[in-house]
Amino acid sequence: MRGAWKHKRALWLVAGAAQAVLVGSGSRALRAQERDKHEGERGQHPITIAKQGSFAFGGTVLTSPGTFDPTAFVSTDGNTLHGDHGYVQFQIPPDARELPLVMWHGGGQFSKTWESTPDGREGYQTIFLRRGFAVYILDQPRRGRAGQTTVGTTITPTTVDQSLFAIFRLGIWPNFFPGVQFPRDPEALNQYFRQVTPNTGPETTDLVSDAVAALFNKIGPAVLITHSQSGKYGWPTAMKSPNVKAIISYEPTSFVFPEGEAPPPVATAFPQVAAITVPVTVPPAEFDKLTKIPIQIVYGDNIPTAASPYGGLELWRVTLVRVQQFADAVNRHGGDATVLQLPSVGLHGNTHFAFSDLNNVQVADLLSHYLHEKGLDRGKGKEKGKEKKDKDDR
Amino acid sequence: MRGAWKHKRALWLVAGAAQAVLVGSGSRALRAQERDKHEGERGQHPITIAKQGSFAFGGTVLTSPGTFDPTAFVSTDGNTLHGDHGYVQFQIPPDARELPLVMWHGGGQFSKTWESTPDGREGYQTIFLRRGFAVYILDQPRRGRAGQTTVGTTITPTTVDQSLFAIFRLGIWPNFFPGVQFPRDPEALNQYFRQVTPNTGPETTDLVSDAVAALFNKIGPAVLITHSQSGKYGWPTAMKSPNVKAIISYEPTSFVFPEGEAPPPVATAFPQVAAITVPVTVPPAEFDKLTKIPIQIVYGDNIPTAASPYGGLELWRVTLVRVQQFADAVNRHGGDATVLQLPSVGLHGNTHFAFSDLNNVQVADLLSHYLHEKGLDRGKGKEKGKEKKDKDDR
Repeated sequence: MRGAWKHKRALWLVAGAAQAVLVGSGSRALRAQERDKHEGERGQHPITIAKQGSFAFGGTVLTSPGTFDPTAFVSTDGNTLHGDHGYVQFQIPPDARELPLVMWHGGGQFSKTWESTPDGREGYQTIFLRRGFAVYILDQPRRGRAGQTTVGTTITPTTVDQSLFAIFRLGIWPNFFPGVQFPRDPEALNQYFRQVTPNTGPETTDLVSDAVAALFNKIGPAVLITHSQSGKYGWPTAMKSPNVKAIISYEPTSFVFPEGEAPPPVATAFPQVAAITVPVTVPPAEFDKLTKIPIQIVYGDNIPTAASPYGGLELWRVTLVRVQQFADAVNRHGGDATVLQLPSVGLHGNTHFAFSDLNNVQVADLLSHYLHEKGLDRGKGKEKGKEKKDKDDR
Repeated sequence: MRGAWKHKRALWLVAGAAQAVLVGSGSRALRAQERDKHEGERGQHPITIAKQGSFAFGGTVLTSPGTFDPTAFVSTDGNTLHGDHGYVQFQIPPDARELPLVMWHGGGQFSKTWESTPDGREGYQTIFLRRGFAVYILDQPRRGRAGQTTVGTTITPTTVDQSLFAIFRLGIWPNFFPGVQFPRDPEALNQYFRQVTPNTGPETTDLVSDAVAALFNKIGPAVLITHSQSGKYGWPTAMKSPNVKAIISYEPTSFVFPEGEAPPPVATAFPQVAAITVPVTVPPAEFDKLTKIPIQIVYGDNIPTAASPYGGLELWRVTLVRVQQFADAVNRHGGDATVLQLPSVGLHGNTHFAFSDLNNVQVADLLSHYLHEKGLDRGKGKEKGKEKKDKDDR
């Protein structure tokens, strides 16, 4: 019951008067969200899927010189290797809404980001499937299930769990932040530390954004949801494919600006933080493409407002300066970019992974609300009239 | 209609008189299989899932010397890395049957093996979910979504597509075998060549079988389904976990024997083939564990019966000699191992990936039949009486 109350409060705070009208009118869509949330929390209502599957997208082909010998057991001469593709797993509910959600993991991560949470609750993949969206969760080229690479690399195990504990804003190791929305079960932390996988080849912006643009060209218009490092890659992907109809980005750290409009440096004692958040400039005509789609950028809690002695937290202080510069640039050029800090709408304690935090259903409610507000959650086949629409909204 | 006929014929050929009794009695289980098969082929009947998710299993922790500095942006000193785990994705239908199916990919492959097929049809993951089984599809340690490794490696792209075309028995490149059960759409072959991903660290039998035994210890009694290289790993996994209640292995090439009972070499002109199929010996007490569970080993078509000039085909000729030696050894010691060559029951043209071939629903029917015959497809809660059982069988 408390969750339901907090949920309503959060929606109110985000939407203000517009929300009051929706609630007052007994909107089917909002009632459906309430129902889905409760069912998701209980996890007892079966999920219904019309179709599920997976496929590779984009990629290249490497060919070795020589002549293929069909009798040899294995030979590389004249053989090919198909690599550098991305990989996507999809689930489509019956009567899916018009625009699928494409979910892209961050640095060192893979599709797990959107799957069940470290403590086994439903993640965005299943939550939004329940809410009637086709959901595509991807592994970018040279990561996870898309590991086949045409360029080799050396993998060196690197111990960084405790550093990431701060960067991901669970706390300052070994102490959790008070009230942080992360489970205290040690097995949850074990699972969390294991949802990482190394690159199998060099990572470049063009490699991954070309592939994901190819995905959008294949599946058609859809909404792109990025996280952390893939925020950086989402901007050029939207420039490369007109099928990216909106971007919701959770905690990106890198932003693009039109050439000649890069904002000045943000002072910080940590050179790595400065490097990660340095403005990227693009031709104005490319930047302009970002002004044609709704963009929402979301951050959690425990971000310092003054310079921090902890590098992992300082990253977020500087990022919040940068993201506002980015949103201002998009809006100055006629676009629609908003920055949402979850504490400002009553959600406290969120980490770098708000979509899998303990209150992720409430975080998902905010995404549902944004998609609704921007007309991105339409049902299919409006031409079929009211009966169809009611069904979508149920 | 033709598919249904072939299905019935295959079941008849496998089961003989016992099958006649089952069909004669109008068994609900077999009628349900027929229904599922047709619905799966149409792909129009929604799938219902009670719960889905993913988690890491097994694994180790690597710790760097030194003292963790919480202020550093990133430092390895005194930090840990969690690696060497496997990764599993599961889907559980409402009223699931008692024993889940755990599906393990082969060499160079990952969970894709069991997901949708190269031409986008349903694979074993979804087919057996529709048939009421909880399905677990895994990535073994240092592969795919389980790429985080405590031991580094160098990844070198290796062009072997055309060699694998023969080893996987699609044909002799660029010609498909006549009647081979692989789609001729070039995009299907493109997808097939991309369902490969490299190891991110050294691969050893203990590494992967320890992890998968840990998975069985976590989820409880279940049926293990292996493919190709994981056949070799399935035997020790069953020795390590009493929760492995049966093994169905598609096209394994390596087999275990009790010490002192290794069969003699099989003559072949290909040293690589001899090495892959060389008998592995284990203490008799360990081997004995394989005699306590039903084992079925399945092979497709286009396997030569005399020495072949093609190394990729010779592998299968020698393997068929070895597998019979293995089954004989298991049965000689009181076990229950059977070898099923699909052409012998009327299924022709199957490749190394029978479970994703064009006729994979019929191949799945044979697995359903085997599970039923061995009492491995029981519904849960038999204590609830007939009503419950009827529901499971519907």
